[in-house]
Amino acid sequence: MKERIRQTSIQLFAEKGFKETSIQDIVNTLQVTKGTFYYYFTSKEQLLMDIHLSYIDSLLEKQKAILEDSEKSYKEKLYEVVYLLIHDIEKEGLSAKVYFREMRNLSEPHLSLIASKRDLFRKQIEEIIQKGMERREFRNDLPVDITALGILGMANWSYFWFDPAGRETDSKVSEIFLKILLEGLAESR
Amino acid sequence: MKERIRQTSIQLFAEKGFKETSIQDIVNTLQVTKGTFYYYFTSKEQLLMDIHLSYIDSLLEKQKAILEDSEKSYKEKLYEVVYLLIHDIEKEGLSAKVYFREMRNLSEPHLSLIASKRDLFRKQIEEIIQKGMERREFRNDLPVDITALGILGMANWSYFWFDPAGRETDSKVSEIFLKILLEGLAESR
Repeated sequence: MKERIRQTSIQLFAEKGFKETSIQDIVNTLQVTKGTFYYYFTSKEQLLMDIHLSYIDSLLEKQKAILEDSEKSYKEKLYEVVYLLIHDIEKEGLSAKVYFREMRNLSEPHLSLIASKRDLFRKQIEEIIQKGMERREFRNDLPVDITALGILGMANWSYFWFDPAGRETDSKVSEIFLKILLEGLAESR
Repeated sequence: MKERIRQTSIQLFAEKGFKETSIQDIVNTLQVTKGTFYYYFTSKEQLLMDIHLSYIDSLLEKQKAILEDSEKSYKEKLYEVVYLLIHDIEKEGLSAKVYFREMRNLSEPHLSLIASKRDLFRKQIEEIIQKGMERREFRNDLPVDITALGILGMANWSYFWFDPAGRETDSKVSEIFLKILLEGLAESR
């Protein structure tokens, strides 16, 4: 039931917005009582926090596996992280929508916890770039933090445009982005 | 007065959100009557549309000047467009916030008009890439549309993190992004 409440709420929050959705709307859609809701969640915000946590924790876990895979080069790890973001936005479209749009409806200490987890995700991209520079896979004349933000932007922006039914798959888009990021757009002569 | 209403509303919409701000809030802040508001705008949505139009029209106008500048290479035009976006997000922070966050509160035909102007901005980035490919400034083995979306993402995402008081200026960030985009991150051996 907890998972059903979560899934229904993700759908309602994505469609109508967090503020515009009441607990009554959620329990009506599920045809259960408010008591059932409060058995699992103390408030609508706690439910929103739960959705945010599931989303970012799942991303962090997958990112950790990529970081720890000693078989892969840092170029490959970079591909994997870009693919992870674009793929996740595709697979978890509604959750991504709630995650990107409704964070401002969290209050403290929830907000800080989610912000610190988002920071960790970014820091771990920095780690890939830093270590890749040390291994001479990446050039080392660019600031690691701004580079990480550029990569994150490229991948995350796909939330606004990526169409699973479109011409290019998530893995193809990731490949194109990695070509740009690694090799650059300039025609070499 | 029209401009004062616009500026005050941008501030209120950015702070509290469009839905959460009433016309009463706007006129209270300005210490004018509702009649004054309705002399200039027919509704709160028309005002939001006015803010959206000013924002995108000003960007399109600046982008047009870049496109038409025959002195510049396509690499330089690409720099100029990336700088335009990052600089504008810095200078027009509150308008950018309203523009990015509140578009969903527009209804038809407003929504379609803004969407078509956003599309035009993207198409004009595609034009820079396409023509730059034809002039052999850019490699021509990448799809123009996905490349444009990657560039747009990198630049637009700065809305979420760019800090005018931070270490790097808007022009420095644009330079770093252009280095990545043109030359790539890979260490050349």
